[in-house]
Amino acid sequence: MPYQTDISNPRNILALNIRRLRGERGISQEKLADLAGLHRTYVGSIERSERNVSIDNIAKLANALEVKISELVKEDPA
Amino acid sequence: MPYQTDISNPRNILALNIRRLRGERGISQEKLADLAGLHRTYVGSIERSERNVSIDNIAKLANALEVKISELVKEDPA
Repeated sequence: MPYQTDISNPRNILALNIRRLRGERGISQEKLADLAGLHRTYVGSIERSERNVSIDNIAKLANALEVKISELVKEDPA
Repeated sequence: MPYQTDISNPRNILALNIRRLRGERGISQEKLADLAGLHRTYVGSIERSERNVSIDNIAKLANALEVKISELVKEDPA
């Protein structure tokens, strides 16, 4: 059985959306961190669901990815 | 000119949605806090946009209000 991310964990929802949107834009974690005004290692830990990210930083990431905040926490991005 | 909440502030978006949904459900701040497992004064400060709420606590509030996390951070709830 392939690895499945548990989307009942809100940190995983955020991580999946950020990874997906960053991939679609073809930008690195470092570039995203730079655009959002956050540290590269912090963005890495968010993408590994390790961080309990605050609304202010979710908003910075949404702005950097040019999506609405709600897009970053959508369970079903389709 | 009537008081307008600045929805470019992500804390205000969250605060407005929580107040609206709590009002629609006819429950008090204390009841919402109880349902979410958070402190009553903390919920009050979230509704006044004073807190930089984390994704884990946003998820607790969404569960308590029986909506998706993305509903709590939607700029346009209509």
